[in-house]
Amino acid sequence: MDAIDQLINYNRTTGLLQSVAGRNAWDQETMMPSKSGNSRAMEMGALEEVIHERKKNSKVGKLLEEAKPKTTFQKRAYTLIKRDFDRAVAIPSKLASNLAATTSLAQMAWQKARQNNNFSEFSPHLKKVIDLKREEASLLSPSGDLYDGLINDYEFGTTKNEIVSIFADMKPRLLDLRQRISEKKLSKPVLKGDFDSQKQLKLAHEIAKTFSYDFNRGRIDTVTHPFCSGGGDDVRITTRVDSKDPFNCLYSTIHEVGHACYEQNVSSDFLHSPLGSGVSLGIHESQSRIFENQIGRSRQFTKWLFKKMKNYFGEFDINDEEEFYRLVNKVETGFIRTEADEVHYNLHIMLRFELEVEVIARNLEVPDLPEAWNTKFKDYFGRDIEKSSDGILQDVHWSIGAFGYFPTYTLGNLNAGCLFEKMRKDIPRLEDQFEIGDVTLATTWLTENIHKHGSLYEPADLIKKATGKNFTPEPFLNYLDEKFSDLYEL
Amino acid sequence: MDAIDQLINYNRTTGLLQSVAGRNAWDQETMMPSKSGNSRAMEMGALEEVIHERKKNSKVGKLLEEAKPKTTFQKRAYTLIKRDFDRAVAIPSKLASNLAATTSLAQMAWQKARQNNNFSEFSPHLKKVIDLKREEASLLSPSGDLYDGLINDYEFGTTKNEIVSIFADMKPRLLDLRQRISEKKLSKPVLKGDFDSQKQLKLAHEIAKTFSYDFNRGRIDTVTHPFCSGGGDDVRITTRVDSKDPFNCLYSTIHEVGHACYEQNVSSDFLHSPLGSGVSLGIHESQSRIFENQIGRSRQFTKWLFKKMKNYFGEFDINDEEEFYRLVNKVETGFIRTEADEVHYNLHIMLRFELEVEVIARNLEVPDLPEAWNTKFKDYFGRDIEKSSDGILQDVHWSIGAFGYFPTYTLGNLNAGCLFEKMRKDIPRLEDQFEIGDVTLATTWLTENIHKHGSLYEPADLIKKATGKNFTPEPFLNYLDEKFSDLYEL
Repeated sequence: MDAIDQLINYNRTTGLLQSVAGRNAWDQETMMPSKSGNSRAMEMGALEEVIHERKKNSKVGKLLEEAKPKTTFQKRAYTLIKRDFDRAVAIPSKLASNLAATTSLAQMAWQKARQNNNFSEFSPHLKKVIDLKREEASLLSPSGDLYDGLINDYEFGTTKNEIVSIFADMKPRLLDLRQRISEKKLSKPVLKGDFDSQKQLKLAHEIAKTFSYDFNRGRIDTVTHPFCSGGGDDVRITTRVDSKDPFNCLYSTIHEVGHACYEQNVSSDFLHSPLGSGVSLGIHESQSRIFENQIGRSRQFTKWLFKKMKNYFGEFDINDEEEFYRLVNKVETGFIRTEADEVHYNLHIMLRFELEVEVIARNLEVPDLPEAWNTKFKDYFGRDIEKSSDGILQDVHWSIGAFGYFPTYTLGNLNAGCLFEKMRKDIPRLEDQFEIGDVTLATTWLTENIHKHGSLYEPADLIKKATGKNFTPEPFLNYLDEKFSDLYEL
Repeated sequence: MDAIDQLINYNRTTGLLQSVAGRNAWDQETMMPSKSGNSRAMEMGALEEVIHERKKNSKVGKLLEEAKPKTTFQKRAYTLIKRDFDRAVAIPSKLASNLAATTSLAQMAWQKARQNNNFSEFSPHLKKVIDLKREEASLLSPSGDLYDGLINDYEFGTTKNEIVSIFADMKPRLLDLRQRISEKKLSKPVLKGDFDSQKQLKLAHEIAKTFSYDFNRGRIDTVTHPFCSGGGDDVRITTRVDSKDPFNCLYSTIHEVGHACYEQNVSSDFLHSPLGSGVSLGIHESQSRIFENQIGRSRQFTKWLFKKMKNYFGEFDINDEEEFYRLVNKVETGFIRTEADEVHYNLHIMLRFELEVEVIARNLEVPDLPEAWNTKFKDYFGRDIEKSSDGILQDVHWSIGAFGYFPTYTLGNLNAGCLFEKMRKDIPRLEDQFEIGDVTLATTWLTENIHKHGSLYEPADLIKKATGKNFTPEPFLNYLDEKFSDLYEL
């Protein structure tokens, strides 16, 4: 067997082990008995150890030297395997295990601190995590800038300066839109009543099918914090149910279905190869957001959803389609990122990005973070933070060392903007069919232009190939202006 | 670190990977989407490859040479690790992963073939499995007899000839008992009505708790073919529901709870070590059978169960405790092993044992198996098989390569006989409390004498230690005679 085939085969086994680890993590959130946690942590550690050993195995290094990739597939597989290998060998085992242990403790401390609304309990842990992440970043950064080393893990090739520049373009327009909306003082619809949990889940299943989620290669379960897990032939989503707020279940389902369809629709030629899954977090999030917002919160789709909800739950306290549309697109200044509307969402991200850049650069020390958060929040959102679970302690990301992750959420929104603009140009009257719950024109376009390619192209190339031009934030900002100017009669 | 500690540590990681593989297999039966099968087979193959590589790793061989076990724990761990190592080095990695992948596909083919009552769909898969198992057996057999190599995997140290000899003792007594019962022509109670599935599952949960199954370290799900999976802190059981026959659900639950409690009650000192699980299938099955039959089908326990069933389902067509007792112990010639009464059960096993001995010895070819099955069934049970799901296709075992497994069911019954005889001697009026659903005298005795020891002793030594004498089939056969002579007024 050729060196390149050997390399791809060896990598396939490693990938299969990662799939098993992913399913074990899914099980932990959905099925695991309450007192199995310690044994589970040991299992995950054992599997991680084996996977890491394989990734940095000298056999991979030797095959990378010998391999002569010829086909497009082989060339791309080679690039991705080499990237993974270089990263694995750059990180000493001691640092890796130190990071694993420290973030595990930090995450537990964060959970408690959040419950107690007491940042000082979490602060020393966060300090340790940041020190280790700085050390890791110094080994990974292509530019010398530590933050670039961190963001590279989630969005390969993107730099801090690019994000800074994108956010500089966006911020004034978002703040302006926010301001104009708040000045309108329109009465905002409010949802009242109790919505049966089983019916919510049944409707969630119907919506998932509507968006072409393949239940023969997936399933839906309930959890505290919804996520999508797996790839290829087994992509599972999760949702949560709140009897007072059915949109929590329904829109988190659409969001996760967006992630899941991306994975399910990758070309089967790429199955079990480095090309066989979504290429980056920023592209992945674009799919979940376009499903959730551009399609799921469109005027046309909400007409269908309004009817469906009346079928499932009977009449409720919303009078007509238009009021329902305004309900699911209500703009309100809340504290919590995951509950934010489309106008506010990216301001939450900017706040976090700006703080993590400063803290990684050591321009801001950990004990000063809460004040910096609260000041920025007041500045962008106009409200005072009263408890840290509404502020600095609301997200898990920093406790698990995920610095550089937050900006990919905004990149997802912006990519969704680029893709939706092009989709609308390609397909006249794209949204008409949404009214009858038929979104296949949109999902088919996404499958053809994004999903099926898996990790064949770099994120920027993929967007350019799909839209015919380079990525810019403009289309997304135009989409927001158009949608909310109409909604709020600006 | 000492070589013995290094050896035990290395083995712990391997054991943790096996736990992950076990859970992935559980997932395949309970949660996996319908079209994930091919990818799942590859995953299981990859994990098996890694586990097998670790088991036969030269590092283990070197540590086995250097290690100086001192404590009882270390000595037993050493013995078990060495046994596993010797077995692993005998099997080439390619054969191991080939077996994992082939049996995964064969199991799926068996499921379909069983649904369609079409053995020929399964036949080519079974042929492949048998060829691989013969190859494996030839590398493992201590005696040169292939079947000994296979049975060794499930009941270390037991041979084909021992089983032949035990079965030769049993068969005439069982056939005689069966004959005497059938001549009595007593009217047999029949259960009529429909028993709500959700209520069956709820009662199954209550019964599991009654037998001290710990739901904080386990869970119950429904499957086609019930099983118990896992060990230590995460031991899961499965059951099935038939609205016409609640005993299917209830007694399969008690059976699997017997397996599960054995695993859950192993001393926590042995957790994540080679001593940390049940020592053999023959001992394991003795626990499930003693829970199910000696306790669960006793006159006293069925009094409690009769009351419970009336609480859950309302009145049904059985008049009194005695009729209910006769109902759950009804002796009837059925096709299905898992539904067999205590008198017929071991005849089902003998049939399978005799066939698999022949097929492994190549005295019988796969396409001829259905006819051979049907002929033997007519001989022992006096009935014709009309569909292969009632005959050759009823059990999963052969599809997963578990040749040599069936006899351990009978060994389980016989071990249960030995243990129950001693338990009754140790505890006067043992069964009195069963009438109020309190079986703790029995389960505590089993925990103390069997469960907590895990794999500390060899099966034969464990039985001798618990009962004060060597294993024989006599106590079980006496138990059957006594119970059914009373029931059928022989």
